[in-house]
Amino acid sequence: MHLTQSLHRNVQQQPDAPATVFGDRVRTFTESADRVARLGGALRALGAKAGDRVGMLAANSDRYHEYFYAVPWIGAAVTPVNIRWSPKEIVYSLDESDTQILFVDDMFAPMIPAIRDGFPGIREIIFCGDGELPDGCLDYEKLVADADPVPDTETGDDALAGVFYTGGTTGFPKGVMLSHRNLLTSALGSSATGHFLTPGGRLLHAAPMFHLADMASWVGGNLMGTTHVIIPFFTPEGVAQAIALHQTTDALLVPTMIQMLVDDPATANYDLSCQQHITYGASPISSAVLDRAQRTFPNASFIQAYGMTEVAPVATLLLPDDHKDPVLRTSAGRAAPHSEVKIVGPDDAELPRGEVGEVVVRGDHVMLGYWNQPEATAEAVRDGWMHTGDGGRMDEHGYVFIVDRIKDMIVTGGENVYSVEVENALASHPAVAAVAVIGVPDDRWGERVHAVIVLMPNATVTDEDLHDHAKELIANYKVPRSYSYTDELPKSGAGKVLKRELRKQFWDGERQVH
Amino acid sequence: MHLTQSLHRNVQQQPDAPATVFGDRVRTFTESADRVARLGGALRALGAKAGDRVGMLAANSDRYHEYFYAVPWIGAAVTPVNIRWSPKEIVYSLDESDTQILFVDDMFAPMIPAIRDGFPGIREIIFCGDGELPDGCLDYEKLVADADPVPDTETGDDALAGVFYTGGTTGFPKGVMLSHRNLLTSALGSSATGHFLTPGGRLLHAAPMFHLADMASWVGGNLMGTTHVIIPFFTPEGVAQAIALHQTTDALLVPTMIQMLVDDPATANYDLSCQQHITYGASPISSAVLDRAQRTFPNASFIQAYGMTEVAPVATLLLPDDHKDPVLRTSAGRAAPHSEVKIVGPDDAELPRGEVGEVVVRGDHVMLGYWNQPEATAEAVRDGWMHTGDGGRMDEHGYVFIVDRIKDMIVTGGENVYSVEVENALASHPAVAAVAVIGVPDDRWGERVHAVIVLMPNATVTDEDLHDHAKELIANYKVPRSYSYTDELPKSGAGKVLKRELRKQFWDGERQVH
Repeated sequence: MHLTQSLHRNVQQQPDAPATVFGDRVRTFTESADRVARLGGALRALGAKAGDRVGMLAANSDRYHEYFYAVPWIGAAVTPVNIRWSPKEIVYSLDESDTQILFVDDMFAPMIPAIRDGFPGIREIIFCGDGELPDGCLDYEKLVADADPVPDTETGDDALAGVFYTGGTTGFPKGVMLSHRNLLTSALGSSATGHFLTPGGRLLHAAPMFHLADMASWVGGNLMGTTHVIIPFFTPEGVAQAIALHQTTDALLVPTMIQMLVDDPATANYDLSCQQHITYGASPISSAVLDRAQRTFPNASFIQAYGMTEVAPVATLLLPDDHKDPVLRTSAGRAAPHSEVKIVGPDDAELPRGEVGEVVVRGDHVMLGYWNQPEATAEAVRDGWMHTGDGGRMDEHGYVFIVDRIKDMIVTGGENVYSVEVENALASHPAVAAVAVIGVPDDRWGERVHAVIVLMPNATVTDEDLHDHAKELIANYKVPRSYSYTDELPKSGAGKVLKRELRKQFWDGERQVH
Repeated sequence: MHLTQSLHRNVQQQPDAPATVFGDRVRTFTESADRVARLGGALRALGAKAGDRVGMLAANSDRYHEYFYAVPWIGAAVTPVNIRWSPKEIVYSLDESDTQILFVDDMFAPMIPAIRDGFPGIREIIFCGDGELPDGCLDYEKLVADADPVPDTETGDDALAGVFYTGGTTGFPKGVMLSHRNLLTSALGSSATGHFLTPGGRLLHAAPMFHLADMASWVGGNLMGTTHVIIPFFTPEGVAQAIALHQTTDALLVPTMIQMLVDDPATANYDLSCQQHITYGASPISSAVLDRAQRTFPNASFIQAYGMTEVAPVATLLLPDDHKDPVLRTSAGRAAPHSEVKIVGPDDAELPRGEVGEVVVRGDHVMLGYWNQPEATAEAVRDGWMHTGDGGRMDEHGYVFIVDRIKDMIVTGGENVYSVEVENALASHPAVAAVAVIGVPDDRWGERVHAVIVLMPNATVTDEDLHDHAKELIANYKVPRSYSYTDELPKSGAGKVLKRELRKQFWDGERQVH
């Protein structure tokens, strides 16, 4: 199995159907395949070899689709860059993965000098925007026009398809290595439920394409012969407009986006009855929001996908019928057809139903490992089981309820934030003696990053001081949205901060749904 | 990926739901898993080791389901025996695959002496019927009751899951080796269309379970959490009764079965509106039969699967919407999501659309190879592409139209018959000087086996003489249903019989649909 197989299949079956729609720009599968073969030729001419990493730092566009295909076409691996990261984090990931060729669009062109400074190993920057060509960059369209098309290397199976950076418990991002088989297994297994995508439908990309959740929907859509309708980024009205204009059938959204859509009065101006399937991830959806979303999208069925980058990414699915039950609706659903899921104790033995332990996942979708981190890989994947770091329990019918995050991670607006990264940033402020970062319930973001601060003797500081300091070091979405101050953090006998105690005032012990 | 994964998943998600329904006998997934673990323990105690072949010669039953799971559970491989074969052919396949442990039911118990005589290597015969225990056999239920359950070896991925015998061009059956991944890839890819099986539905097994087509539906059903409703063998009224009584949702049938169902007045006595999906294989379905079938099954959508044992077995699918078009309805559909399909010339280069060549198939579903026949494997699978032996053309939207069979094979009532096997049987009759066997159109069987005979000088023979002679040597379904006599067979310059010339009087050159 190889990722590019679906492009050949779509050219074979619907050569003149639109592969991508981006604003006024529509490209058929035949055009798309031709441009991919040329872009592959251009990358090859620039020295990209099999196994090399090729990055993209850009908002969504039809060129993201071409990049996703052209890189595996020549046997190389994609490294999509998180556009919300700080330049410091971006440079770290490019350097660590030795990504020497990078695509950058208009929106991120201003970052180019910082990237070149921070990672001198960068060899070529390809400008994939529509504005003026920045200094020292290659022009995407010129490369595609001038290049000789190269044949598909048909790289696949267990070969590296991409390195996807996620926050890490050590305070540094980790690169998750996924193979072709990893990505295709998750997509095929999710599609096998019949609720994920409409065969031959139109799939909206409003969630960021750099994110594996959206890329996974792209892989699934390719298998289903989907037309990709792409907008640069999420805005409530932009989504409503695209859905109505292009009559999209499917979309991947996070609950925060769904909430913003139903909250925005402008969406009422559009007929959204064409939408058939909405997949959402990252967290359960509240009954109140779901009921309103069902009114906004009268013909859509909702499906929740739970997983993580390390399982490419789907482990469990909450199917449309499951949503009818108010209790099940708060769960993450059940093991997808391709996936094994169980709840284990610290000794990795399966726990009886109802007991809380760590959620572990096994199957052909479990990552090859973390880039350059064999110890972290061995720690995470034991006996084939990916240890998610999520605490959960399973009911008598296999429904998984996530109740805690063993890895001390916060999910805010669909993004994972590891507390330790935020704590490191705040701890470097001279007024801070100790800090603990936790997730607290938030109506808009699901969870909000909150910091509990212990000040140095006689020091004074404002929330704004801390905010400005953190913003220099970490991505904006990781910066705490609220602060509280205390004399001492609660600690265990072993001196470990008892975050559960800190969270108590915000949560009632079970994972909350707002 | 391993085949037994789905059993664990179904126990996890619906422990008390019925896994199998066979007459009055209903077994839940929990019971089913317990019995599988015990049957595995019994097989292990009888000396079955990882990689060993374990056979079954039986009509359909819930024990076939347990056998399909218990054998891979201990890391061994299934060898389901074609119940329509002659004792000679059965012995050949058991001997060639060295299948030392064999399950046999009431219906085939009378064959046991011939099997022991023909293949002394057989060590144990397990009686899986409900009647009296034959001499020298082990009792299935006693084994299950007395055995200690063993843990699942979780054998999977590229390990051998089964050896499936099909007719061979050399006149001897060939054992197709399929891995866990082969079978699971075909099942996942077919399910991904959303038209194959109902999640949590009830799947009817009326087609013989030894046949890979039905076993493939079993694999798919397990992934979808299906209840298997099993009847011993196909009869029109038996099927109608089982559908109405057990409210089945899905079934795998061959066109001949569908025709017999719509032709039988008894089916009108049953409400068959519960049936959601009917998958049919082996050949296209005529418009007349399809229209009547749609009236018989008012809520069913029809899907045609084309493939062969060697691709585990699905290569292309004709989806429900495709059936609306009278031309597409005569095609075999388009490449399934997991499958690559193209039409090549004798040099293996892809031909332009519309030109007739050989249909070739690639993907994770292509067999490991033929058992003990590396040369035949190398001949069939070249550069990863399985050469189907079917002649076909592809239209501009990827629809494959099968127009000829390069391997000189006849498909009659869903069974493949290689002409050479029938020719060898007839040629051994003393009155026959030369013989050519072809498929001719038949209202009931799709194709009918027909023999064109050249007699020895001065010899005389009747159709009945030839029929009786052939029946001793080959399976009943392979024995010609009609004969014609001629002085000389048409031959090419190289002396090869020109079967196309012989077929001309029955066919108009394009594959016919009746």
